[in-house]
Amino acid sequence: MPTFQTVRGMRDLIGDEAQTFTTIIEKARETASLYGYIEVITPAVEPLELLSAKSGEEIRQRMFIFKDLGDRLVALRPEFTASIARLTTAALKNEPKPLRLFSVGTVYRYDEPQRGRYREFWQSNYELMGSAKPEADAEIVLLTNSLVKSLGLQGYAFKIGHIGVIRGILSQDGVDEKTQNAVLQRMDKKEYDAALKLVESEKCRAMLEGLLEIKGKDWQDTVGQIQSHVANYERAKAAAENLAEVLKLIAESASIPITVEPAFARGLEYYTGMIFEIYIPELDIALGGGGRYDKLIEAFGGESTPAVGCAHGIDRIAIALQTQKTALTVKTEKKVVVLPITETLKSEALKIAQQLRAAGVTVEFEVMGRTMAKALEDADKRKADFAVIVGERELKEGAVMLKDLVNRQKSTVPIDKLAEKIKS
Amino acid sequence: MPTFQTVRGMRDLIGDEAQTFTTIIEKARETASLYGYIEVITPAVEPLELLSAKSGEEIRQRMFIFKDLGDRLVALRPEFTASIARLTTAALKNEPKPLRLFSVGTVYRYDEPQRGRYREFWQSNYELMGSAKPEADAEIVLLTNSLVKSLGLQGYAFKIGHIGVIRGILSQDGVDEKTQNAVLQRMDKKEYDAALKLVESEKCRAMLEGLLEIKGKDWQDTVGQIQSHVANYERAKAAAENLAEVLKLIAESASIPITVEPAFARGLEYYTGMIFEIYIPELDIALGGGGRYDKLIEAFGGESTPAVGCAHGIDRIAIALQTQKTALTVKTEKKVVVLPITETLKSEALKIAQQLRAAGVTVEFEVMGRTMAKALEDADKRKADFAVIVGERELKEGAVMLKDLVNRQKSTVPIDKLAEKIKS
Repeated sequence: MPTFQTVRGMRDLIGDEAQTFTTIIEKARETASLYGYIEVITPAVEPLELLSAKSGEEIRQRMFIFKDLGDRLVALRPEFTASIARLTTAALKNEPKPLRLFSVGTVYRYDEPQRGRYREFWQSNYELMGSAKPEADAEIVLLTNSLVKSLGLQGYAFKIGHIGVIRGILSQDGVDEKTQNAVLQRMDKKEYDAALKLVESEKCRAMLEGLLEIKGKDWQDTVGQIQSHVANYERAKAAAENLAEVLKLIAESASIPITVEPAFARGLEYYTGMIFEIYIPELDIALGGGGRYDKLIEAFGGESTPAVGCAHGIDRIAIALQTQKTALTVKTEKKVVVLPITETLKSEALKIAQQLRAAGVTVEFEVMGRTMAKALEDADKRKADFAVIVGERELKEGAVMLKDLVNRQKSTVPIDKLAEKIKS
Repeated sequence: MPTFQTVRGMRDLIGDEAQTFTTIIEKARETASLYGYIEVITPAVEPLELLSAKSGEEIRQRMFIFKDLGDRLVALRPEFTASIARLTTAALKNEPKPLRLFSVGTVYRYDEPQRGRYREFWQSNYELMGSAKPEADAEIVLLTNSLVKSLGLQGYAFKIGHIGVIRGILSQDGVDEKTQNAVLQRMDKKEYDAALKLVESEKCRAMLEGLLEIKGKDWQDTVGQIQSHVANYERAKAAAENLAEVLKLIAESASIPITVEPAFARGLEYYTGMIFEIYIPELDIALGGGGRYDKLIEAFGGESTPAVGCAHGIDRIAIALQTQKTALTVKTEKKVVVLPITETLKSEALKIAQQLRAAGVTVEFEVMGRTMAKALEDADKRKADFAVIVGERELKEGAVMLKDLVNRQKSTVPIDKLAEKIKS
């Protein structure tokens, strides 16, 4: 019989790899708490209607869609935002704004598998609902910064733009929304020629070309140039001003490396304002990103609610940590094996194991019935710190033999002092 | 536009409810660590072939099955054991035994929704591979005990049995395996009459009836009666002896309330030995359970590997905690709102917010641009402990106004002493 494999594009995380993930998740949860975000856990399976309501054609084609046994058309969530929008328009409808929500879990996209791109992957997700102000945009960038900083990533930089600049130019020159989406989709993929070809107006094309050519010496300069470039485009101008305000708040309150990209677009159609991504120099895939989406909650049937949010790719952050050889600080407990010398002492030995665990010591109990020599050899392989050898003679005195597997010393230790001795 | 709902049988967990889940998960992870179990994260989507290989007809009919875009027949995992078996026969094939593996996450079953039964639910799962010894069985029960004890559940009890007793009787009287499975399935549902009707041999039926009637005054007595009852059934007798050994190890090493159920069966077909479930008196649904499955790894194409494991229903544990009004000890950090008096002070205020967060204080920054009175009113509603009011005058002296929202006192505090003051 052949052995089974994972579904293509999905993978197992074992031991240290899993620990890296749980540590990143823990840091993401801590960051949420520090910024006042409440955790919500939503189902990984959602009505297709919900998931396809506003996520854009691109993602729709890459969803895992199926019918449940009750003939309901459902799909695995390709992101969290639709589920959060559902909450905001229903269960949390009457909660006072601002509403800060945090989620973490798996999302699913049928992409061609490659490094950093899996069909099941993990995201931490933050949404701030109810504020149209630039300090809300700034907060989302700041918390992303706090997260990657707390993980010890080095040399990272934020790429920031504003979807309102391109949309402002396109709409003022009469390009309909559907074409706008198509243009932005191609810009997202850096297919700029293909994007420009979709635009009929020569004037509009020239404006976009001009925008694409802007290269400032720093982000302040770039934003200044964008503002000049769109001076006659009312909505694009307002967008560029908004971007400048957001950037100012970020730069004045924290030290964060920023690049402004004039023609920056992101895959999801629902963005309306500032958008950003975060990169490290060693990887050309974003570790996370987000932006403002003021129309989304309305599109889901809720009241008009300005909102801004972001998601971080935990799989990619794990790759970044590995690439930079960053060791996460994981609390390492002392590991002990407990070995009864004879079969008849198993209960006594189990009891001692329970006492050690109650005191916070990791105990692997000998369940293989091996000889002492074999069990000790195995304990070395498993990098145990101590072996607790439970024998008749010592037990009569309320003690056990403690073998330090690192410096190879043996001593007789009273059972009631054992945990203390191991932990010291 | 109507608002969207969750898929039938699935649900959202918001705020405190989510925190209860993450706390239970954290305790489950701590328990895993204390017992030397390594965490593995496996996909929620697995090949149908894997999931249906050994899980029994019952569960197979309740799976979420679909084809991915590559026409692969896949399903949402209804439990963890098949995925762990896959790992054991492939990626972890050459790891030395015993192999202790821990997982936690969502599983999916298309059941009729009711209290404690959801179509997406959370499990923590522990598997101990490679040992046929009773101390391995005991360990699985002991770690379940450690988990529920650490959560503060009261009055819980373990129901323990041995699938080998019934199978031993049935096989000695010539009942084929398929019929055995059908009998056990009905016994699992307590449909004893229906179970007995499937057995043709009168002698065998009488044996089972006798088994069902056993009622000891305590578990020792019950096990003794089972042993006498099956004295002439070689395999059943060995099973009863094994059960007695496991129970002896548990009872001698820890204080755990145990009931032995002579005709205990569990839904999954793959059990071969000791089986158990855990209950609290207030709920008639099991909080968790497990048992021995010595043939499973072989069935998945691996080498013959004795194994024992268990899973805990996190949704049900959450209900149990709620029913018993058990408050989980959740670390509660001080919560602070930071309010700039004027628009021009936003960057300064954000900077102070960042400093407080870096010191571990939860900060909700004012992103609504409200008046001071409105913002303070809202801070009270959100049960913030302090408001940090950032004004021109205090800033000039490197200070801010700190308002204690509990005892309504105000004081001017230097920025560099702010975190300390708030945390004290």
